[in-house]
Amino acid sequence: MVTIALDAMGGDFGVEQPVKGAAALSLEDVALQVLLVGDAEAIAAALDQVPHDPSRLQIVGSKGCVPMDANPGTALSEMPQCSIIRALDLVASREADAVVSAGHTGATILASAKALKRMEGIRRAALASVYPTERRHGPRRDPFGLMLDVGATLDASPEDLVGFAVMGSAYSSIISEIEAPRVALLSNGTEPNKGTRNIRAAYGHLQATELNFIGNIEGIDIPRGTADVVVCDGFLGNIVLKMLEGVGEVFADLARSASDRKLSWRIGMTMLSGGLREIRKMTDWKAYGGAPLLGMDQVVIKAHGRSEARAIRNACKVAAKSVKGDLIGRIASGMDDARSP
Amino acid sequence: MVTIALDAMGGDFGVEQPVKGAAALSLEDVALQVLLVGDAEAIAAALDQVPHDPSRLQIVGSKGCVPMDANPGTALSEMPQCSIIRALDLVASREADAVVSAGHTGATILASAKALKRMEGIRRAALASVYPTERRHGPRRDPFGLMLDVGATLDASPEDLVGFAVMGSAYSSIISEIEAPRVALLSNGTEPNKGTRNIRAAYGHLQATELNFIGNIEGIDIPRGTADVVVCDGFLGNIVLKMLEGVGEVFADLARSASDRKLSWRIGMTMLSGGLREIRKMTDWKAYGGAPLLGMDQVVIKAHGRSEARAIRNACKVAAKSVKGDLIGRIASGMDDARSP
Repeated sequence: MVTIALDAMGGDFGVEQPVKGAAALSLEDVALQVLLVGDAEAIAAALDQVPHDPSRLQIVGSKGCVPMDANPGTALSEMPQCSIIRALDLVASREADAVVSAGHTGATILASAKALKRMEGIRRAALASVYPTERRHGPRRDPFGLMLDVGATLDASPEDLVGFAVMGSAYSSIISEIEAPRVALLSNGTEPNKGTRNIRAAYGHLQATELNFIGNIEGIDIPRGTADVVVCDGFLGNIVLKMLEGVGEVFADLARSASDRKLSWRIGMTMLSGGLREIRKMTDWKAYGGAPLLGMDQVVIKAHGRSEARAIRNACKVAAKSVKGDLIGRIASGMDDARSP
Repeated sequence: MVTIALDAMGGDFGVEQPVKGAAALSLEDVALQVLLVGDAEAIAAALDQVPHDPSRLQIVGSKGCVPMDANPGTALSEMPQCSIIRALDLVASREADAVVSAGHTGATILASAKALKRMEGIRRAALASVYPTERRHGPRRDPFGLMLDVGATLDASPEDLVGFAVMGSAYSSIISEIEAPRVALLSNGTEPNKGTRNIRAAYGHLQATELNFIGNIEGIDIPRGTADVVVCDGFLGNIVLKMLEGVGEVFADLARSASDRKLSWRIGMTMLSGGLREIRKMTDWKAYGGAPLLGMDQVVIKAHGRSEARAIRNACKVAAKSVKGDLIGRIASGMDDARSP
């Protein structure tokens, strides 16, 4: 049985969607226990509205929640009992096995750094995200690849990039069930001498590890999905990820305006609606289950702020899969290998 | 009358497409003279095949051409009379007003650095590229924005980024006829304190210039087209541009496979063909006329290696427009302003 501490306050939709997600999960055939961390009264009231299995849910009271537009440092020091801090305390004290939050990303990263320990050899944490690719990945034929860091560490040293590669490979091998995920550095050319100084140095280190390092990939390989795990610093990863979001948005706008402009186009779009739904599903990758914060000694999954019940449920499942797959142990042994001469 | 020195050897299609493009241009009502630089016999033979106005074309013989897969430094020193060097010599000696080449990008940049002077205050050249955006730009409602650097300068200092902003603004104001182009820094957040140290420093400098600096934009703003001119270092610009190329490619693949999968989808795609053509035109931004190499004291336009006759013709027109619009003079006065206290 895996126990998840779910920050039930952090997302854009208050307690309602997290509670709905956890309630649905409690009725599924998965060995999962969810601790709902937040305003106890509000959570109890929301639970009353939805069918659930009370034996697999528990409410843990907390005070306050970091607003999406807050300065995370200030907010956390002003609210020492807020939902994300309480949820992290539960894993630090081993009352829970993993944390899931749809709250403020910066606050989740900062509170994790305070409540948890960084793993041996990891100087900087990384936030990883799945994103849609043309190529399918692994035996489950997942339509998404993994990219990290996407925003936790702006400027990554060669050692940080090697750490990201080890952590991303471990996570991908568990989530997409790939034995030896193809790991690549994102650069401005495929040759080993391409890229910034940090990337060139990381290239050398990565060749000496046991990772399935396929070298550098270029921007064109991101949507193609050439690698299972794309490694870059958080500045670049943030821009790439948000750009993919923007491209999805623009295509949706174009499709809408095409329908509006001509009757024949409207009919054409209707005939294609099944295919368009498939594409939309592909680009709606936020529903896949959130982004793991990697590098701490416990499993922390950051769900998107706009997560609805289904996304929260998926994030909890991903957290449970990470615990069962021994994500932390796999990262530890990967780091041992990467640092041995 | 503007005179263009066209490197007729460099592209993927040998002399044929450049000659075809120049020939078509010679019959158009534009005050343009083209010097076709390359193997004189091959050019003359290709010219014989197509209608053209001999009074507006002239062949300038050269020896050799940098292959696409060559090391540019080695190739240039082994072929001191190759087409790109000869073409650049023609502008250095004022026999031509601008250079256009579809050849090796690195060789074009390197040969330009040797043959031409860098402008006052410019430490590093930048390659700028247009790319498709949802938002239209300027009075001509151009469906593309400008991004620079996309590959000439890997790691840009704050001063380099300011120079890129000045040069991009001058180019955009000429090509898209925008009086005060919206210029932005590409970063991981819109606030002034977001981004790498270099970006934060450039932000402060840019606020003190007379440019229409709108601050930082994020990845999501790239396809939206929030800015007319997107400023970043060449490493990031290269990845972003190649990623856009990859996204276009993947959408084309998806459309093709949708047609193949179901009869109703095939009919739907047929009904939408007009709209799809519009999108394809939008993503086929390479045809818009090539990428200017900015920072030298002469106009240099780099057309895509795969340029066919129409793209070459457009690149020559863009070069002529840059000359007539006094691109170099505008950059010089922009740099004067940016460096004055």
